[in-house]
Amino acid sequence: MGNMRNSIKRIAILGSTGSIGQQTLDVVRSFPDRFEVVGLGAGKNAALLRKQIKEFQPRMLSFDAADSRDKLSSSQHRIMSPAEIAAHPDVDLVVIAISGKAGLEPTLAAIRAGKSIALATKEAIVMAGGIITAEAGKRGVQIMPIDSEPSAIWQCLRGEEQGIERLILTASGGPFRQMPAGKLETVTPEQALDHPTWKMGPKVTIDSATLMNKGFEAIELSWLFSVPLDRIEVVIHPQSIIHSMVEFVDGSVKAQLSIPDMHLPIQYALFYPQRAPSNDRPRIDFTNIPGVPKRSRSSALTFEPPDMQRFPCLRLALEAGRKGGTYPAVLSAADEVAVELFMKGRIGFMDIPRLVEQALGEHDSISNPSLDDVLTADAWARERVHS
Amino acid sequence: MGNMRNSIKRIAILGSTGSIGQQTLDVVRSFPDRFEVVGLGAGKNAALLRKQIKEFQPRMLSFDAADSRDKLSSSQHRIMSPAEIAAHPDVDLVVIAISGKAGLEPTLAAIRAGKSIALATKEAIVMAGGIITAEAGKRGVQIMPIDSEPSAIWQCLRGEEQGIERLILTASGGPFRQMPAGKLETVTPEQALDHPTWKMGPKVTIDSATLMNKGFEAIELSWLFSVPLDRIEVVIHPQSIIHSMVEFVDGSVKAQLSIPDMHLPIQYALFYPQRAPSNDRPRIDFTNIPGVPKRSRSSALTFEPPDMQRFPCLRLALEAGRKGGTYPAVLSAADEVAVELFMKGRIGFMDIPRLVEQALGEHDSISNPSLDDVLTADAWARERVHS
Repeated sequence: MGNMRNSIKRIAILGSTGSIGQQTLDVVRSFPDRFEVVGLGAGKNAALLRKQIKEFQPRMLSFDAADSRDKLSSSQHRIMSPAEIAAHPDVDLVVIAISGKAGLEPTLAAIRAGKSIALATKEAIVMAGGIITAEAGKRGVQIMPIDSEPSAIWQCLRGEEQGIERLILTASGGPFRQMPAGKLETVTPEQALDHPTWKMGPKVTIDSATLMNKGFEAIELSWLFSVPLDRIEVVIHPQSIIHSMVEFVDGSVKAQLSIPDMHLPIQYALFYPQRAPSNDRPRIDFTNIPGVPKRSRSSALTFEPPDMQRFPCLRLALEAGRKGGTYPAVLSAADEVAVELFMKGRIGFMDIPRLVEQALGEHDSISNPSLDDVLTADAWARERVHS
Repeated sequence: MGNMRNSIKRIAILGSTGSIGQQTLDVVRSFPDRFEVVGLGAGKNAALLRKQIKEFQPRMLSFDAADSRDKLSSSQHRIMSPAEIAAHPDVDLVVIAISGKAGLEPTLAAIRAGKSIALATKEAIVMAGGIITAEAGKRGVQIMPIDSEPSAIWQCLRGEEQGIERLILTASGGPFRQMPAGKLETVTPEQALDHPTWKMGPKVTIDSATLMNKGFEAIELSWLFSVPLDRIEVVIHPQSIIHSMVEFVDGSVKAQLSIPDMHLPIQYALFYPQRAPSNDRPRIDFTNIPGVPKRSRSSALTFEPPDMQRFPCLRLALEAGRKGGTYPAVLSAADEVAVELFMKGRIGFMDIPRLVEQALGEHDSISNPSLDDVLTADAWARERVHS
């Protein structure tokens, strides 16, 4: 037990009150002697953040809502910005689970400070993938994805990052996989928030219902693993058991599978390169896979092509990703605003792709954008969609 | 091109006229500047061996049938025993694809000479797994499996050989997967040789029809990857797309998939640790997987539990493997003779498990057997089944 302290990872969790943040704390709770939570950051859920502070006693805190920020202050911890926490010398690993654009700044701060990062915020990479991966490459920082699909690809590439032929990115298809095009117009936020296989935060759940999320993941994978988008294929797999696959140049395919559970990719990143035993996690019974109507004695994993007609967000994302420049930043910003408007009941479900397509169509892209270019494009797109 | 010769692997193929041997030569033919065939060994197909000699001009030859052995002799090559070829200093890699017990001696000879071996002959490991793996461990020799399922496990463990929870060994189920128990009694050799997904040699095809082959593979995997048999689960997967899977301690599963084609695992072993591009190999179209009745727009991979009642060979193999000692040697020998008798029409299909079970039931096993103990048990079982 003498050198046990040496193996403790000091982690900061930005977005700790969100779905991924809470699940990250579940993993920490399961392995109390392996992690020390030195920083927590949240947006507006002060009640939950207070509970987390009491339990994990972090030394550093960030909180967006200025009005209650002062009330969180105490002698036990310092109030800082997310980027300051991400770059602090006492942090070994930064978990970035802030939804949307707000994840970008702390991501870059963590990378510039040479921290390992476990990244859930795919919007950051969609917006500024070229900048983030260049900075990470310069400093030898590993970006560890903690979303199931990118984690699946990362796990499949373990031990052999060369010789990739294509990535096969699976998608559950979301709650409206079989809904006729006409009915999609009248979908309510409540329906869109009811995902068949994954329990996630609201933004990513809506993005899963439009398949925008899958397009974001394709762009993320393209940056993280240096695979061009035309070698990334999206396949609908309603059971969400195969989380993604890699085909190698010899025709061999590796897949990563599990019962859908975000704790697994989070735990994989926190412990990487080890795997920690989880005896209480349900295992796949291949002879009894849930989510498929039983046919005789057999159980099945099913696949179908994505329907780009009914789910134009996927097509828009792949197009924006292929064109590059500041198009992906506009895609991400326009989507973020459109999803907000949809959640507030101000636009319909199919207006999300319409607004995104309009913004992309009107945008003058800049190639090899700087961070300023990205932020300018982001601001332009937000303004454009709002108006 | 200056140091191209340095990257040439000098290989010997024992069992070159069999199914695996011929497919190994196909791979060599596709990459003529990567391999030099320095040795070929065959059993009795002199006509095919002569063609292979003409094409590949090996310096060393072995041939079992004594009568035509002299006619193969020439100034271009030496006639040797398989074990002599396997141990020869001019050989870098030995492919052992001799079916049945005859593969054991050259396997041990190759290991003792410190050669890399690509092993198709699972009977050698079933008979003498403890001896083979101990010898290989002592000399740091890697045993590379070139059968699809063990290769799948090997590929899944690449980059992380620790933290295995269980191996999930898939089986097509063979041609009689859905045949009622009563009808299995009257199966003919022709029916048993007609495998639904794999084109293989006769012995392994019959073993696939009885599921004995899957039991052998479980025993082989147990030795190759140090996983106890009760952590190896057999699952029937009729499409033969997922070739096997590894579940890790955190609940994550990795699978290796491909269109069924023995060239792939052979090529993987020949090139290991590289992967060589094969542009002509058909790729999996996940939205159009063959072998499943089409249901609406989706395509499926299906799974079902194995039926140990209708396929007692699988149960017998797993039991013999668990008991250890010389039971697996008896299992393998009794099966080899029983399959011969079945092929000659002298016994029925369901007599194969009956004869094997009888031999196992009458055997006095020796634990931690020496090679002599294994060969004695083998001889006893052959005698017992014949009588």
